[in-house]
Amino acid sequence: MAERVVLAYSGGLDTSVGIGWLKDATGKEVVALAIDVGQSGEDMDLIRQRALDCGAVEAIVVDAKEEFASDYVVPALKANALYQKRYPLVSALSRPLIAKYLASTAKELGADSVAHGCTGKGNDQVRFEAAVAALAPELTSLAPVRDFALTRDKAIEYAALHNLPIAQSKKSPYSIDQNVYGRAVETGFLEDPWNAPIEDLYTYTQDPSIAREPTEVVVSFDQGVPVAIDGVAVTPLQAIEMMNLLAGNQGVGRIDIVEDRLVGIKSREVYEAPAGIALIAAHEELENMTVERDLARYKRGVESKWAELVYDGLWFSGLKRALDVFIDETQKHVTGDIRLKLHAGTAVVTGRKSGESLYDFNLATYDTGDTFDQSMAKGFIELWSLPSKISARRDLAGK
Amino acid sequence: MAERVVLAYSGGLDTSVGIGWLKDATGKEVVALAIDVGQSGEDMDLIRQRALDCGAVEAIVVDAKEEFASDYVVPALKANALYQKRYPLVSALSRPLIAKYLASTAKELGADSVAHGCTGKGNDQVRFEAAVAALAPELTSLAPVRDFALTRDKAIEYAALHNLPIAQSKKSPYSIDQNVYGRAVETGFLEDPWNAPIEDLYTYTQDPSIAREPTEVVVSFDQGVPVAIDGVAVTPLQAIEMMNLLAGNQGVGRIDIVEDRLVGIKSREVYEAPAGIALIAAHEELENMTVERDLARYKRGVESKWAELVYDGLWFSGLKRALDVFIDETQKHVTGDIRLKLHAGTAVVTGRKSGESLYDFNLATYDTGDTFDQSMAKGFIELWSLPSKISARRDLAGK
Amino acid sequence: MAERVVLAYSGGLDTSVGIGWLKDATGKEVVALAIDVGQSGEDMDLIRQRALDCGAVEAIVVDAKEEFASDYVVPALKANALYQKRYPLVSALSRPLIAKYLASTAKELGADSVAHGCTGKGNDQVRFEAAVAALAPELTSLAPVRDFALTRDKAIEYAALHNLPIAQSKKSPYSIDQNVYGRAVETGFLEDPWNAPIEDLYTYTQDPSIAREPTEVVVSFDQGVPVAIDGVAVTPLQAIEMMNLLAGNQGVGRIDIVEDRLVGIKSREVYEAPAGIALIAAHEELENMTVERDLARYKRGVESKWAELVYDGLWFSGLKRALDVFIDETQKHVTGDIRLKLHAGTAVVTGRKSGESLYDFNLATYDTGDTFDQSMAKGFIELWSLPSKISARRDLAGK
Amino acid sequence: MAERVVLAYSGGLDTSVGIGWLKDATGKEVVALAIDVGQSGEDMDLIRQRALDCGAVEAIVVDAKEEFASDYVVPALKANALYQKRYPLVSALSRPLIAKYLASTAKELGADSVAHGCTGKGNDQVRFEAAVAALAPELTSLAPVRDFALTRDKAIEYAALHNLPIAQSKKSPYSIDQNVYGRAVETGFLEDPWNAPIEDLYTYTQDPSIAREPTEVVVSFDQGVPVAIDGVAVTPLQAIEMMNLLAGNQGVGRIDIVEDRLVGIKSREVYEAPAGIALIAAHEELENMTVERDLARYKRGVESKWAELVYDGLWFSGLKRALDVFIDETQKHVTGDIRLKLHAGTAVVTGRKSGESLYDFNLATYDTGDTFDQSMAKGFIELWSLPSKISARRDLAGK
Repeated sequence: MAERVVLAYSGGLDTSVGIGWLKDATGKEVVALAIDVGQSGEDMDLIRQRALDCGAVEAIVVDAKEEFASDYVVPALKANALYQKRYPLVSALSRPLIAKYLASTAKELGADSVAHGCTGKGNDQVRFEAAVAALAPELTSLAPVRDFALTRDKAIEYAALHNLPIAQSKKSPYSIDQNVYGRAVETGFLEDPWNAPIEDLYTYTQDPSIAREPTEVVVSFDQGVPVAIDGVAVTPLQAIEMMNLLAGNQGVGRIDIVEDRLVGIKSREVYEAPAGIALIAAHEELENMTVERDLARYKRGVESKWAELVYDGLWFSGLKRALDVFIDETQKHVTGDIRLKLHAGTAVVTGRKSGESLYDFNLATYDTGDTFDQSMAKGFIELWSLPSKISARRDLAGK
Repeated sequence: MAERVVLAYSGGLDTSVGIGWLKDATGKEVVALAIDVGQSGEDMDLIRQRALDCGAVEAIVVDAKEEFASDYVVPALKANALYQKRYPLVSALSRPLIAKYLASTAKELGADSVAHGCTGKGNDQVRFEAAVAALAPELTSLAPVRDFALTRDKAIEYAALHNLPIAQSKKSPYSIDQNVYGRAVETGFLEDPWNAPIEDLYTYTQDPSIAREPTEVVVSFDQGVPVAIDGVAVTPLQAIEMMNLLAGNQGVGRIDIVEDRLVGIKSREVYEAPAGIALIAAHEELENMTVERDLARYKRGVESKWAELVYDGLWFSGLKRALDVFIDETQKHVTGDIRLKLHAGTAVVTGRKSGESLYDFNLATYDTGDTFDQSMAKGFIELWSLPSKISARRDLAGK
Repeated sequence: MAERVVLAYSGGLDTSVGIGWLKDATGKEVVALAIDVGQSGEDMDLIRQRALDCGAVEAIVVDAKEEFASDYVVPALKANALYQKRYPLVSALSRPLIAKYLASTAKELGADSVAHGCTGKGNDQVRFEAAVAALAPELTSLAPVRDFALTRDKAIEYAALHNLPIAQSKKSPYSIDQNVYGRAVETGFLEDPWNAPIEDLYTYTQDPSIAREPTEVVVSFDQGVPVAIDGVAVTPLQAIEMMNLLAGNQGVGRIDIVEDRLVGIKSREVYEAPAGIALIAAHEELENMTVERDLARYKRGVESKWAELVYDGLWFSGLKRALDVFIDETQKHVTGDIRLKLHAGTAVVTGRKSGESLYDFNLATYDTGDTFDQSMAKGFIELWSLPSKISARRDLAGK
Repeated sequence: MAERVVLAYSGGLDTSVGIGWLKDATGKEVVALAIDVGQSGEDMDLIRQRALDCGAVEAIVVDAKEEFASDYVVPALKANALYQKRYPLVSALSRPLIAKYLASTAKELGADSVAHGCTGKGNDQVRFEAAVAALAPELTSLAPVRDFALTRDKAIEYAALHNLPIAQSKKSPYSIDQNVYGRAVETGFLEDPWNAPIEDLYTYTQDPSIAREPTEVVVSFDQGVPVAIDGVAVTPLQAIEMMNLLAGNQGVGRIDIVEDRLVGIKSREVYEAPAGIALIAAHEELENMTVERDLARYKRGVESKWAELVYDGLWFSGLKRALDVFIDETQKHVTGDIRLKLHAGTAVVTGRKSGESLYDFNLATYDTGDTFDQSMAKGFIELWSLPSKISARRDLAGK
């Protein structure tokens, strides 16, 4: 039997042409693997057939939407994960899932290598290969676009020459990646960071500047996981899909930043993640109600580190796993309801209630019923200030 | 000469009555000190006269608006300081400044103690007293409201009995603190965290849900400090005042959170800080353009710590000072222009340019002219993944 | 039935006199509770009888040595816990355990309060009361020595007056606390930090400057827990006791530092913890063999925080619990053998081996058999250096 | 004029042969640059002549010992820099200094590239090249041993063939790097981490197990810098040299660890750094006396990061520079005397005094004269425990 390589197949130009390239360059049989993470767009059966038409010895489609939502997006929500405080890790979350299927498919089918269609200057190549290395260290990772220096022009030429069934009629000027959690758009005129984004870029969100009535929605969480919307029980996938609609229709979730890539350069990126931005706003405020101060403060540092690790392709690393158990421990009481007002690009919390709340009306109120013993404060302040006081005596001496 | 105490005087009921209370309880002469940090409201001369009418032996007014903006708000902007990721530290920034004047006035006038009007369950008592301890450790801090358990009812009764010139006609149901950087509102019906805020709470911001045309503005920074708005040079104070107007008119800067107080309880707070929210958004994105990745990542942890320290009343502590020099070092290249779109409660960056930019078009572009050597990525990924790969060999053995 | 208070009873002067004080001051019946955490010294039956003789309505002795070793010291070993990099938290570990028994005994016997014999300027008062607050928030904590300002002189006078059975013949000039994990010595001539410690202070360790033959010992760990010494299976308690002997006889584990107390002052402390210092040295090096780099680096920050929390009396806090699950996750592969050479005050690792090792001879060796692909390094360095390179182009321009 | 490359020249086999290799492979003229960082061994004039004899077009020797001590070791002392808590960064400190001279010499002599003799699996290649990239981004770095896959056997063969003046009579079984701050030894039988080090490895330290009289020495620091030893003023270089002698003669400063290399593997390393270990012990304890608690706690995290950055070759990075200004700020009061007892491999602080001390006898003492107000503690503990208490009420409800 010929050696085999399992290719992460998107149905687009690069990976379609990649099937032939891989065969030509390595002599291996190419298995095309298409993972449905809610990127919508084309029908997965069409994609499967195209892979075969392009020369794949086998083409496999996996519906991983529920798994993606539950096992990849939910941990990101628990972590309030926003790289550089802004980016909800849309693509960074799907790569380890796809890599997991690359590795398991390679094992099942006896392949000795896997492949992806990434270039050599982005983050996704690292995410794919680092994940594969952590799951199946014996596999080799191939990246035809990067390693054979194949440009887009060469791909179009190859497709024409071999009569590959890939429509090139309407080429997008942008590079786009999307899944149920969001969309990433880059290149084109955005490469000048002074240029403002235009409406044309967006698919998941409506123009926030158009006048609309606000939408009010109550999101319920159980131990950090969204479990109901306006009282209706939902799976994580449903929660994301519903919030994409509700928040997206109000223009919530657009992001435009200059971003620090793992490979050492800065790039300008535009994202849409309506559900992500709205759910994180809700989740953070529920934590404000239910998590102790010191734990909450420390968790914020853990969140940054978690987001950086996932951004940097280290989903399956030991540190990421250990941060996950920390975060899970913090979520034990993050249960309750958050009322959000969605409007004109904003997702604003307007109410929160929880049976697990640490907010204590009787301690907080200035009204009758106050149970806070104010006389304790004097001693607290005295000792709290003591180190500063002692050093002031030193530092001010003789001044 | 009788002993003296310098009281931080606001002109309101508690500190007006406090003049008499302090005299009665301690026998000291009371010097009233009113610091103008842009809280607007009453004329400072009226406040000065009221203090005298209430029995102060002396009443001093200091216009500290420029100093507040330059020496207290600007460091907070450089630190992108948002406690719990949300609160721009409005009151927390003014307390150390007021404490500084309490201490210096006490030294000048030979007073042996200072006083403030805070209760025993908030943060401000700590901020005042910790700052005084760090600046003038020999002074005693008095807090008549807290230490003599004086309630609002007793204050009203005292004012009536002594015929103090304080209007009580229209008592606000809320507890409010404000300065040029923002407003804090608490208590009242907000003590039920499920209740949404109402328009009535807000002064610095217009209702974001009313349809308006967006406002576009370009903010220029020099080493992290806002120095021009739409090309017109401004002082820090002017930058804050102008952005309060521009962003406030678009409903930008409203904040509603459950907050972890230093004294150990959670409280529900509503804030307005239009300039703060808009300027921090601009400043953060300019940092994304001009600060190296690793420095930017580390700075985010420093920012959290800085905000916690300032929230916790440790403005004059050694750690705060050392974080300041770190932050100043990070700002050396944070120079350039940010274009903001202000609309319906959002302050969105739509463009950035800088002579100090680390964004390199030729490295970032996927177009002709790309200078990034993609062949380097393979080696990078190999070593980047190596620890995970080695541990995978161990962890997966026998599985 | 009269109200009851449960007193943490040591058998010493302060808590013996405290029985009477508490009765006199509160009218409550006093239950004396003595916890054996391996402090050795007097027979626990004698202590029990003394409590009754001093007026306790009931006296209870609990042998908690195994529990202390397994549930309090072992987590500290996993955390390599050294406050200020030096102090193994000897007393800080026993306080939460004692507080746990105070709380459970109070619940069983229907007491409404607990008490301890600490003064008001140390850490232990905080550790007792914070632990009780976290375990039984309805209980009140009393501290007769602190709250009634009872000095040692008053205690001696009271004991004499009431003819309490407490020998005062040989008063130590030092304040001492000890348990199976170590000893703490303070006050006396040590209060001048220029004075060197003298041999007289030490009980658990021999003089390291006396010439002896080195001792070699192999400690085996299973998931971070010491399980065998020189191949003989041990419980955690036995591991500590044996290492106290072996390391103590070589003078290992003496510590002399100026320490930052939680109450805001610096104090000078001398400790002995032979087993602690030796086992942490062994455990750290086994981690070097078996834990991934990034996880190990992050864990070092967690260790510092863990030690600070425990030092600060927050054993039962939410953050401490969440750090524990993080640390436990890191220990899954910390299994193997460490050979220690104990000599003249040093515990030096001279060999390590582990079936879970991540040290890979074939990658590390410079000999034949090297499997490391050196050609990968060039690409790695290129991208690793890229942020510095890009900023250098900016920073050096025009210089 | 032919193109030129500046080679970091050690005088050893690899770089001597490297002169010819570089010429053969690149056609460039080779300038040999030997930096004296106190590695002792051969006379620098001999080394200079050997470079010329091996074909260098020019050979330059720079005495950088003082600069190394003052500008590279002193910052490491201020940072108490110990990678993995153990390794004082001996080689990691010299690389950026050598790289600085490589870059400046290349600029002066119009060279377009620099070169070093490192292999492709160690840290030093990264340190050289990352430093050069940060100082002279236009230069190319060459690594003949790594990039041309030149093994030791090939080097010996080449040297014989070309009759190069390099004695190979007594080849060390180890790979050694040394400078005035310490020595690093690796490979050979040490590659089995169960093997104990042998006396033969060590040069800077005497056998600690031989009985000797202890040595007592007082080290004085001024703002974190060692400035006197036993009252005699010293430069940083002199301080290191004297402490190497004093501590080395007592066997202080031997280190044996499994280390996490930047390139992703673990290696086993043996080091000697007598002055480093002794001076850091002294410096840390002086900080305990003179630095505020919160600043000291935060600095410990900064220290770890600093050591990791320097280990990882990022000496000239923006983050490293910003951490330096933080650390310098912490050192303003680190002035005073530390008495060390050096004996049998240990450097133990036995006394500390400082005009900048924050240790306050009157607050610390339990004797007459105590000025600590113990009544303050009750209020402190109440608020300190409040978050745990509130969450306990929730967590224990119904249990």
